[in-house]
Amino acid sequence: MATIKDVAARAGVALGTASRVLSGSSQTSADSRSRVLAAAAELGYIANGPARSLRRARTDVLGLLVSDIRNPFFSELAHAAEQEARRHGYTVLLANANEDAEQADAYLRTFAAQRIDGLLFSPQGTVSPQVAATLASGLPLVFLNRTIEGVDAPLYGTDNAQGVQQVLAWLQSRGHRDVAFVGGPDTISTGAERRAAYLTGRQAHGISTDDRLLDAGDFLAGGAAEAMCRILDRGVTFTAVFGANGQTTLGAVRALRERLGAEQAARIEVVSFDDLDWFEFASPPISAVRNDASSIGRLGVRGLVDLIGGRAASGERIPTTFADRCVQDIR
Amino acid sequence: MATIKDVAARAGVALGTASRVLSGSSQTSADSRSRVLAAAAELGYIANGPARSLRRARTDVLGLLVSDIRNPFFSELAHAAEQEARRHGYTVLLANANEDAEQADAYLRTFAAQRIDGLLFSPQGTVSPQVAATLASGLPLVFLNRTIEGVDAPLYGTDNAQGVQQVLAWLQSRGHRDVAFVGGPDTISTGAERRAAYLTGRQAHGISTDDRLLDAGDFLAGGAAEAMCRILDRGVTFTAVFGANGQTTLGAVRALRERLGAEQAARIEVVSFDDLDWFEFASPPISAVRNDASSIGRLGVRGLVDLIGGRAASGERIPTTFADRCVQDIR
Repeated sequence: MATIKDVAARAGVALGTASRVLSGSSQTSADSRSRVLAAAAELGYIANGPARSLRRARTDVLGLLVSDIRNPFFSELAHAAEQEARRHGYTVLLANANEDAEQADAYLRTFAAQRIDGLLFSPQGTVSPQVAATLASGLPLVFLNRTIEGVDAPLYGTDNAQGVQQVLAWLQSRGHRDVAFVGGPDTISTGAERRAAYLTGRQAHGISTDDRLLDAGDFLAGGAAEAMCRILDRGVTFTAVFGANGQTTLGAVRALRERLGAEQAARIEVVSFDDLDWFEFASPPISAVRNDASSIGRLGVRGLVDLIGGRAASGERIPTTFADRCVQDIR
Repeated sequence: MATIKDVAARAGVALGTASRVLSGSSQTSADSRSRVLAAAAELGYIANGPARSLRRARTDVLGLLVSDIRNPFFSELAHAAEQEARRHGYTVLLANANEDAEQADAYLRTFAAQRIDGLLFSPQGTVSPQVAATLASGLPLVFLNRTIEGVDAPLYGTDNAQGVQQVLAWLQSRGHRDVAFVGGPDTISTGAERRAAYLTGRQAHGISTDDRLLDAGDFLAGGAAEAMCRILDRGVTFTAVFGANGQTTLGAVRALRERLGAEQAARIEVVSFDDLDWFEFASPPISAVRNDASSIGRLGVRGLVDLIGGRAASGERIPTTFADRCVQDIR
């Protein structure tokens, strides 16, 4: 197995420089950072996580980097993670990427410079240099709800295929054929998985395969509203809307009401991945996949605590349930 | 001015022990902690903040301890604080007290052990030993939205009196006489201020002074639902409900719908301190005081950056606006 000395030699830098880069220090030049990370990747260098954490002074602090703290899914997840962490004697410091890969990188640097025992991470989907440095540092790490393709770390996340299957079955039972789908970014694993499951399943559930009914936002309300407007602008008609996460549904509902007026908008049934507090109060109520944020946060912390203790953790897909709020045929 | 040596002498402990207690280390006994903090309080000891922060290695990290991350007011505030902090070259590590003073203390210890340059703090309302240690440590600190009586630190927060005034004027204009008030804890400054403003102003606005119409929860949805149920259980009738924060309104609406059914509940007008995403979609829509979380977060960071830089910061009350969502008389 490659050692940090091998990495330094291959990169042509001093051992101290390689060590600083791999521990995520910002006290390194961009040039040496990219050379060290490239060398680490070529040599398949992985720091020895458990051994490394034994050498480090324990801080009893876990880092949690979420994608968007204003998304109730993540604030619920953060709350559950923190309660579980406290049961194991840890506190959790929280950081918010705001669905922005650059901001995520800044927080990964902060966590590297601060002293944490392990990281719970909802990534933005790409292996940036800072993500690579975090992985190479050997810091115990689990992914929460989102993963990065090709990266070998346990994932604790929603069963997206199951959730979409529940939506498709519901749409079919409600007799919808023309359904507008407002997705999330394909670069984020949850966005890609939900979209793929929807595209694969729609025909078998009697749903139109007209791709003018599809668009995608950024998993935030603003971007979703724009995506909804683009679908409306195509002049295509639909009787239902499926929002791929809670903030997306919020944005879509807002756009429908602004464009069509409240009365006309209320004739379109809305279904959402992620169940929000207010869906029961909407008119008509919004049915939704319950994405079990609490279990994801709780199980993720248990997995991370296992990794920190030198035990194995294998990740888990957490089942979804479906809240059917239809009381009558409103169309 | 008292020095740390005076504190150690008065407490009868070694200088190192006093220093560890005052820097918030957990490596101290409960006994020495309470003796040192009592001595520091008696002597009016305050560490020299700016000088101390110059001695410390800068980390470019700010701590933000919020009361409840699942409360959209605080997640919005956290988001704004973080954007502003990044403009000044800081990242923000977030911690969630979950409206629990003990959990707040655990995070204050974490922040003390980690290295942060300053703290943005929404306190639970009491000076616990750990809060006292944080104050005594000289760490630059501003309060966000909530303060602690008698503690001299700048507060950046909502103008609660103004917001309640807007609610009272609206209730009067809608002709409400019997109004149920679901408040928050009196131990939290926002809870106390909003309640006081309501009690002071209600008579002048033609609102009943029957105290059976008053109850208080914990500023979380569950506790507010229980408070709403207690009011209902008293058999007193009302035509409007005023929820003292967003989560309180959520809990109150839920309780009304569960107890009275959706149709009957919809005849009661609801008004809220804090405006939530979904109030415009509720049926009927919920009118609300807009508590400007973004400005509070942004101005709080600017104040803290001033303190860190050795400049003065004087705090600010941020004005509220009112979203009147009444389109017709529904009664």
